[in-house]
Amino acid sequence: MFLKNCWYVAAWDHELIDGRLLARTILEEPVLVFMGESGQPVALDNRCCHRGAPLSMGRREGDCVRCMYHGLKFDAAGKCIQIPGQDKIPAKLGVRSYPVALRNHLVWIWMGDPALADPAAIIDYPYLRDPAWKGVPDYMHYDANYLLIVDNLSDFAHLAFVHTNTLGGSEEYAYTTKPVAVERLPNGFRVERWHLDSAPPPFHAKVIRDKQAAVDRRNIGHMHLPGIFFLETLFAPAGGGAREGKLEGARQYRNCQFMTPETRRTTHFFWNYLNDFEGDDSTISRSLHASLIEGFMEDKALIEAQQKVLDDDPDFPMVAVTADAALTHFRRMLEQRIAEEQVGQTPLDTQAVRRQVA
Amino acid sequence: MFLKNCWYVAAWDHELIDGRLLARTILEEPVLVFMGESGQPVALDNRCCHRGAPLSMGRREGDCVRCMYHGLKFDAAGKCIQIPGQDKIPAKLGVRSYPVALRNHLVWIWMGDPALADPAAIIDYPYLRDPAWKGVPDYMHYDANYLLIVDNLSDFAHLAFVHTNTLGGSEEYAYTTKPVAVERLPNGFRVERWHLDSAPPPFHAKVIRDKQAAVDRRNIGHMHLPGIFFLETLFAPAGGGAREGKLEGARQYRNCQFMTPETRRTTHFFWNYLNDFEGDDSTISRSLHASLIEGFMEDKALIEAQQKVLDDDPDFPMVAVTADAALTHFRRMLEQRIAEEQVGQTPLDTQAVRRQVA
Amino acid sequence: MFLKNCWYVAAWDHELIDGRLLARTILEEPVLVFMGESGQPVALDNRCCHRGAPLSMGRREGDCVRCMYHGLKFDAAGKCIQIPGQDKIPAKLGVRSYPVALRNHLVWIWMGDPALADPAAIIDYPYLRDPAWKGVPDYMHYDANYLLIVDNLSDFAHLAFVHTNTLGGSEEYAYTTKPVAVERLPNGFRVERWHLDSAPPPFHAKVIRDKQAAVDRRNIGHMHLPGIFFLETLFAPAGGGAREGKLEGARQYRNCQFMTPETRRTTHFFWNYLNDFEGDDSTISRSLHASLIEGFMEDKALIEAQQKVLDDDPDFPMVAVTADAALTHFRRMLEQRIAEEQVGQTPLDTQAVRRQVA
Repeated sequence: MFLKNCWYVAAWDHELIDGRLLARTILEEPVLVFMGESGQPVALDNRCCHRGAPLSMGRREGDCVRCMYHGLKFDAAGKCIQIPGQDKIPAKLGVRSYPVALRNHLVWIWMGDPALADPAAIIDYPYLRDPAWKGVPDYMHYDANYLLIVDNLSDFAHLAFVHTNTLGGSEEYAYTTKPVAVERLPNGFRVERWHLDSAPPPFHAKVIRDKQAAVDRRNIGHMHLPGIFFLETLFAPAGGGAREGKLEGARQYRNCQFMTPETRRTTHFFWNYLNDFEGDDSTISRSLHASLIEGFMEDKALIEAQQKVLDDDPDFPMVAVTADAALTHFRRMLEQRIAEEQVGQTPLDTQAVRRQVA
Repeated sequence: MFLKNCWYVAAWDHELIDGRLLARTILEEPVLVFMGESGQPVALDNRCCHRGAPLSMGRREGDCVRCMYHGLKFDAAGKCIQIPGQDKIPAKLGVRSYPVALRNHLVWIWMGDPALADPAAIIDYPYLRDPAWKGVPDYMHYDANYLLIVDNLSDFAHLAFVHTNTLGGSEEYAYTTKPVAVERLPNGFRVERWHLDSAPPPFHAKVIRDKQAAVDRRNIGHMHLPGIFFLETLFAPAGGGAREGKLEGARQYRNCQFMTPETRRTTHFFWNYLNDFEGDDSTISRSLHASLIEGFMEDKALIEAQQKVLDDDPDFPMVAVTADAALTHFRRMLEQRIAEEQVGQTPLDTQAVRRQVA
Repeated sequence: MFLKNCWYVAAWDHELIDGRLLARTILEEPVLVFMGESGQPVALDNRCCHRGAPLSMGRREGDCVRCMYHGLKFDAAGKCIQIPGQDKIPAKLGVRSYPVALRNHLVWIWMGDPALADPAAIIDYPYLRDPAWKGVPDYMHYDANYLLIVDNLSDFAHLAFVHTNTLGGSEEYAYTTKPVAVERLPNGFRVERWHLDSAPPPFHAKVIRDKQAAVDRRNIGHMHLPGIFFLETLFAPAGGGAREGKLEGARQYRNCQFMTPETRRTTHFFWNYLNDFEGDDSTISRSLHASLIEGFMEDKALIEAQQKVLDDDPDFPMVAVTADAALTHFRRMLEQRIAEEQVGQTPLDTQAVRRQVA
């Protein structure tokens, strides 16, 4: 049901400060994520192998964690290295550990076959580590399957109706603009859309001086499997020739959104909305952060309502319209990759993995 | 499980003022009900055929509704008549529409085969439109199957125990009175019961001058399939010959209760309790309204407790007593009608209906 | 799934004062428990045989209960003895009654075959009726299977980690002490554990004069099927020879805990923690009561978290460590007894029992 052999975002690094033992369900597996004292992230099955007590209720000791029920201690690889009151520890005793890596302030986790986990395959988003780009990293929880969020992001026309007074700016956007390109990629899709000579949408108007001057707006969205979305947004003075590459006076944004399934009906949503023009005026990134939350809450209301419709009638037949080309392609790619994964490898034996850790 | 080819109450007209898009689940189907600008009620499947977003989160435009996710617009027959950014609309694209009719301030809906929907078959309750009869129309939500409410209304003996201090007046009512008639009708039942020479029950005493004088009380209840109850109540001076038709000094009430299944374990309950003697003193209908709510809450506590018993043990075997003649007959009629409906017609293909709307 | 032919605690006697009709689900059966006016406890199926209304919403009349829906009255054996408005009552009409007995301020109930219910088999705990032992009887509700509580009580090492600052006193307890004896009994187990020359744990220090003096501590735990735990605790001056029987200056406690399954994932937990040294100073038993609640809440957090782990993954494989000898034995005994019960007798026909009561 989920694509397993790929990297998902498990947490922002700032969620793990001060040794926090974070309990987070990912792909319906209970996971403990924490930063070891050495600075390396650790991810373990969040259930003590003894009686199932959550290790997140335990205590960090170095890069290890101790279950605070009967005191069993596990190292970063999940191996049990101490049982109070017992001298011999079975060599294979332990909990499953997951490959993890820290990149661009994000903790990435690999839920599939550990032998296939290659940190080099983690998708890069350099803006997250570039001091020229400022933003407020944040997290939202969705009561909806992550693909409903992917759907949402695949058609900008929803800006017109869902976000008229926040991120969109006008209903006209849906009628007068179309994607100039929908590129179907083996790993997702890329969509580009221009809106020429329009009023700046409210979220943008709030952070610029001339709130009346018309703009040419370009959105380039790039969706990657399993559910990672990058959005480049450009606002240039209307008629200044932005479409021909003349970007003088333009303002740009970089936005990343990482959707990680918690369960088949809930999602962890990590995001940041970055700008490169605020200088020392942090009110700009804070204004953008607030505007985006306002807009995301509009999405959330609709998407969670969709989820309830599907909960009540899992067979509800959706009908594709022309604008669904990107999302249809994405779902097809994903299904294909999941099917390959299930054929190409023997199903992952959790027990075996658990035993292997020693 | 439900009788489908019949009219149910979907809403009071006052629930739809100011263009409200009312989301209401009826017979486990999600329905959007609204009053078109033309004044005609409209009922549609409350799920946009595109991505399932609730149309009740959309916008009324004339007698149409626009989904505020991607902007698809549907007319009162459910046909999709606009897709922003797309020129051609498939002729059959649309959502299911339900036959509706406005009668006596009630919006009626037909959940079965639209071809069989005849507004002339809607049961009439003239007191709801007669200016001589005053009352406060109201709605309650029950966490219980509607038949448990039908059961409740079919035996007035419960007045003695559930409503001793509100609608009933004394436990004696259960011991000393019996139905003078239980008529089994093809479409329900009619029960008549007298209680002679007793103190007026609290709800009635509150709205009359002489709160001590004994009364002769007559209740005539009339239950109709699928779950519509009419109650005529008469209080006459004790010994004045009311049973022989001498009604001088009598006070009368007319009460209607419409039970519409929301799901198999929840119910929409519409009601009004009317009197014809208040003149300009609206405190009387408001007092009766408050008393009835007090009494209905007593029923609700018991009936919802029954529902929990059945949730925990769906096979709990109920044992009939003599007083259950009316409810037993009603349930038998209903089962027979449901069975006929399922045999006599090919099962309604929702998909087909959805496609047909264009 | 549950052991049925045994006595469970249904309530403390003080829960039933003033004629309270207590609704309590036991072994997934809805039970009404009350004290008849004669002083005898009564336990009946909490569903009127007529329409399933809870009898706990009814009214006590002598040793009988009247359903306050339509007024049916049931005696202490469950037999229906009155139906208002109906002269003849079918001889077998009634609700199931359960054998009950009052012992040591506890109401005991037998959920299995009534023919096997022998009050002489009720386990005695004389401290509960001995005026020399003082304590505050109490109740807690657990969102966890009762066996997880049994597990918890079977290994005192958890005192070190779960209760370091309340009932335990130090993590050392888990490392330096071991059970001197784990006795496997046909009906449960007995465990004895000493901790010599240690600081008094916080809960004990609070109620003694010399809070610094080291103590020798002995715990003797005794677990009985189906889930009844007795704990004898001794604190003697360190080095005073307590292990050799010299108990001068010692303080002792007696603690009983009764786990009764509500459902397979929830538990009724009855307990008392008694001391024999408070004299007229009731602040001591109240301090102990408060300390125990503090400690139990630590257990509850962990045990309910375990239950959630098992809810999410009922096949989660627990791995036994050396300290699990007692719990492993207990679960084996219990399974064996349940298996015997199911083979040795025809399954209890609830319907038949219900009909039999007359």
